Amino acid sequence: MALIYSSDKKDDDIINVEKKYESFLKEWNLNKMINSKDLCLEFDVFFFDCDGVLWHGNELIEGSIEVINYLLREGKKVYFITNNSTKSRASFLEKFHKLGFTNVKREHIICTAYAVTKYLYDKEEYRLRKKKIYVIGEKGICDELDASNLDWLGGSNDNDKKIILKDDLEIIVDKNIGAVVVGIDFNINYYKIQYAQLCINELNAEFIATNKDATGNFTSKQKWAGTGAIVSSIEAVSLKKPIVVGKPNVYMIENVLKDLNIHHSKVVMIGDRLETDIHFAKNCNIKSILVSTGVTNANIYLNHNSLNIHPDYFMKSISELL
Amino acid sequence: MALIYSSDKKDDDIINVEKKYESFLKEWNLNKMINSKDLCLEFDVFFFDCDGVLWHGNELIEGSIEVINYLLREGKKVYFITNNSTKSRASFLEKFHKLGFTNVKREHIICTAYAVTKYLYDKEEYRLRKKKIYVIGEKGICDELDASNLDWLGGSNDNDKKIILKDDLEIIVDKNIGAVVVGIDFNINYYKIQYAQLCINELNAEFIATNKDATGNFTSKQKWAGTGAIVSSIEAVSLKKPIVVGKPNVYMIENVLKDLNIHHSKVVMIGDRLETDIHFAKNCNIKSILVSTGVTNANIYLNHNSLNIHPDYFMKSISELL
Repeated sequence: MALIYSSDKKDDDIINVEKKYESFLKEWNLNKMINSKDLCLEFDVFFFDCDGVLWHGNELIEGSIEVINYLLREGKKVYFITNNSTKSRASFLEKFHKLGFTNVKREHIICTAYAVTKYLYDKEEYRLRKKKIYVIGEKGICDELDASNLDWLGGSNDNDKKIILKDDLEIIVDKNIGAVVVGIDFNINYYKIQYAQLCINELNAEFIATNKDATGNFTSKQKWAGTGAIVSSIEAVSLKKPIVVGKPNVYMIENVLKDLNIHHSKVVMIGDRLETDIHFAKNCNIKSILVSTGVTNANIYLNHNSLNIHPDYFMKSISELL
Repeated sequence: MALIYSSDKKDDDIINVEKKYESFLKEWNLNKMINSKDLCLEFDVFFFDCDGVLWHGNELIEGSIEVINYLLREGKKVYFITNNSTKSRASFLEKFHKLGFTNVKREHIICTAYAVTKYLYDKEEYRLRKKKIYVIGEKGICDELDASNLDWLGGSNDNDKKIILKDDLEIIVDKNIGAVVVGIDFNINYYKIQYAQLCINELNAEFIATNKDATGNFTSKQKWAGTGAIVSSIEAVSLKKPIVVGKPNVYMIENVLKDLNIHHSKVVMIGDRLETDIHFAKNCNIKSILVSTGVTNANIYLNHNSLNIHPDYFMKSISELL
C-alpha cells in the first residue's frame, strides 16, 4: 500500500505504487516535480525533517548526504527540524556525523527535546528549580533538561514501576511538580500514566507534549506507534489538551525565523508528513515539499484528506534534488 | 474538590462539599431527592453501576447491601451493569458474595468482559476459531474468552515484552488476528500498543473497546487512570474509532431489555458517571439517578457540562434509598 520506494520492492508492488502515485498527484493537483536548479533559485533556507526524509532509523535514504552537501556548497542555510524526542541536540549531532553528514553543526539541529527544555527554561520557576518536571519520555528529554540544570523526575527511573492493585494502594506524587512533559516512551507503563494524571488533575501541573505524531519511522522495517499514542492516553485521563512544542506548531522555529530575518517566500520545508511537516509549513507561511519515503502513503492521505493539507511540491525522494 | 461523602472528612471539607452540592443541584435544576417508597412505586427494574455506587475497590459504600436486599425483597429486578473489564462474570459473582451481597446471581451481572466475548462469539469466524483475538486487558477478558472457547493471544502473556530499538527490529504479528480487544490494562506497554497498531493498520483487524471511561475507582484511596487512557492510545496510532460495547452504548443490555419485555418507563439506572451511566440511561430511554459517591465531582461536572447530560434524580449516596 505504501508509496515508499526502496530497492527491494517486487515488480508488482512497484506497478501498484506507480498507480497510486499518479492518482495521488492527480487528486492533489500537485506539481510533479521541481528541479534542483529552480529550487536553489527560489529558496535560500531549507528546513528538513529527518526520519523518513534523510533516514529510517539508522538506514540512510539514498542521496540525502549528497543533497545536504550540495545545498551547503551553494551557500544555502539548512536546518533539521525533528519531532523525534529520543535524542538531545548533542546526540543528534553525533548521529549526523556518524551517518556521514559531516558538515552539519549543532545549531542547525532543532529537536523537540531541546524545544521543550527551552520552553521550561524560559519560566523562572523551573530555571530557579522551584518547580520540578515529571517526564514521560526517553533519554533525549532528560539529557536536555540536565544540560539546562532543570529539576526533573520520572523518565527511565520509572520504567520498572509496576501497579499491583490493593485496597490501600495510592501513588504519592511530589507536590512540587509544576509540569508534565510527554514524548515518545518505549517504556510507557500504567504507573507513568497514573503519575501524570495525578500531577495534571490534582496539582494542576502544565501538560506539555513534544508532538502528537500518530506513527514514527523508528526502524526501517516497519512503522511504529508514535508519540501520539502516549500523549493521547494522558489527554484522555486528564480531559486536557497539551501545549505541543513540536510540528505542526511553530514554537521550535520562531527564534530561528526571527534571527534569519529573511522573507518567508525564501524558505521551504521538506518533510514526509502532512499533519506535521506540511501543516507546519502552512503555519510558518512557507512553501513545502512532500516526500514519499516516509509515512505518507495512500491510506494516510485518505485519512488526512479532510484536513485539506496540501504541499506545494512533491518528490518521491530527496534524491530528486540532485 | 470531591462531592464524595465519607466518615473521615474534616469539618471544613464537609462545609465545602455541602456548598458544592447545593450549587451543583441548583445549576442542574435537579430534584434533590426521590424517596425509596416513590422509587419502588415508579420502577420495577433497577440497573446499578458498581464501582463508585456499591463500592470503591473492595470497600463497601454504606448501605449498598441493604438497598439491594430491600429491592429484591420488594420483588424488584436488579441488574449490575459495569464497564469494569478486570473481572469475568464468575469473578464478579465471587466478589459480590464475598462482600455480602449474598442474594446476587450470575445472570444479574452484566460486565464488559462478558459483553465483548458475546460480541465476538456471535461471529462465526471467532466462534469456529478461524480468527484469533489480540487482547490488551486484564484477566477478566481472557477468562471470558476462554469460557467461550475463543482463540486469543496477548493479555498477561505480553506484560513483560520490552522494545529495545535496533535497526532490524520488527514485531511480527499473527496473520490470523481478526480483532483487537482493548480494556483497562495495568501492564500496558509499548509492545502491546505496537502489536495492536499493526493488527489494525496492517491486517485491518476490528478494533473493539470495553469502554472509554477517563478514570476509575480501582481503589478507595484515589482516582485512577481509566480504560480511556489505553483505548485513546490505540485510537491515536490507528486513526480509527473502536466499537465500544460498554456504557454509554446499549449493546450490553439490549438482550436483557428484550427478554424483560417491560416498558422503559419502569426501568431506572443508578450510576456515578455522567458520560457513561447517565448517558447510557438516555440511550436506553430510561430514567437515571446520579450518585455522588463516585467520580462525578464539581470538576468533572464542569468538564462535561457541555455534553448536556443531566440525570433525572440525584442522591448523595445509595443509602438514601433506605
